[in-house]
Amino acid sequence: MKKKIITIGRQCGSGGHTIGKRVAEQLGIPFYDKKLVQIVAERSGLSEETIQQHGEYHTHSFLYNIATKGYSAYASSQYSAGNRQDMRLPDQINAYQTELIQELAEKGPCVIVGRCADYILHERIDCLHLFISADLPDRIRRVIAEHRVDAAAAEGHIIERDRKRANYYKHLTDQVWGMAKNYDLCLNSSRLGIDLCTGLICCQCQ
Amino acid sequence: MKKKIITIGRQCGSGGHTIGKRVAEQLGIPFYDKKLVQIVAERSGLSEETIQQHGEYHTHSFLYNIATKGYSAYASSQYSAGNRQDMRLPDQINAYQTELIQELAEKGPCVIVGRCADYILHERIDCLHLFISADLPDRIRRVIAEHRVDAAAAEGHIIERDRKRANYYKHLTDQVWGMAKNYDLCLNSSRLGIDLCTGLICCQCQ
Repeated sequence: MKKKIITIGRQCGSGGHTIGKRVAEQLGIPFYDKKLVQIVAERSGLSEETIQQHGEYHTHSFLYNIATKGYSAYASSQYSAGNRQDMRLPDQINAYQTELIQELAEKGPCVIVGRCADYILHERIDCLHLFISADLPDRIRRVIAEHRVDAAAAEGHIIERDRKRANYYKHLTDQVWGMAKNYDLCLNSSRLGIDLCTGLICCQCQ
Repeated sequence: MKKKIITIGRQCGSGGHTIGKRVAEQLGIPFYDKKLVQIVAERSGLSEETIQQHGEYHTHSFLYNIATKGYSAYASSQYSAGNRQDMRLPDQINAYQTELIQELAEKGPCVIVGRCADYILHERIDCLHLFISADLPDRIRRVIAEHRVDAAAAEGHIIERDRKRANYYKHLTDQVWGMAKNYDLCLNSSRLGIDLCTGLICCQCQ
């Protein structure tokens, strides 16, 4: 079957955001990256900075809950407003994010970047789960252009961002972030190019 | 540039061998999987069983040599017959395998399955490095059909094979086996199908 929901995990500076945006444009479907943060902020009443910061981490208690209850049972149990008030901040944010991602997928075709959407939606068969990587020099060039920093600062930013994403993924899924087996298709944008990556993904969804 | 040398890492039972063979047939180029074992056996005078068994593992001394000298320097230093006689068996086999893979790539377009060919050839820019994964039920079905064993034995075989491949890759490259970032393109054959995987790979090389 043709895939309708596209999730994109990506290394920092790999061009995953750009590829996701182009795919969404070409397919004429909604694109969710920072938009996810905005919606969670609106729903929770928390600031976008807080969502951005805590959405990258998880407390041990959250992992413990998943390990003991299973993630679906845990997530479902947290959806009532009453429960959420008793939760720690990162867990609250995760409950909002999980609920939102499931809701968006239910609504119709879309592209969702990051936030372990591949794991949150892994039981759906209408998803195409992607991971985008790139060679380090290209990633550094991209971060320099985006953040107007020097090469050393760009490399530091990349290492820190990827460390946080790997931690976040590990805490939420108990899996190693970026393992090929967890995705349907993994593309190196340096080797294949942004256009070809975009084309390959669109082909699976049209 | 169009890629000429195709290396394929693969989970046991993922269909990576079949995909590699079909790609080689469609492109009309040589295919090396068990053929590698046969050639190393001929050149070394060792049995194919020995090559198969020891080619999956590495001793600590080998890793230590790589860590201290760098792999290329280490491999180059081992190529004379005199040196090889002083080497431990797994190191001898690795030196033969490395030399053979570099030689095959130098000769012209081909498909090489396994044996860390992606790492051995990582400095060449005319290679397409692939990793093939698949969902466990499909892998079990494939191993049952190939080895005529029951499901439990098939699953045990898969776990053991993948553990050996991960160890081998770790020892040779000091990297985690199956990480998307180490390949140009990673494909899940259960989600995409054998035909589509074959087609996607051929597209990059024609």
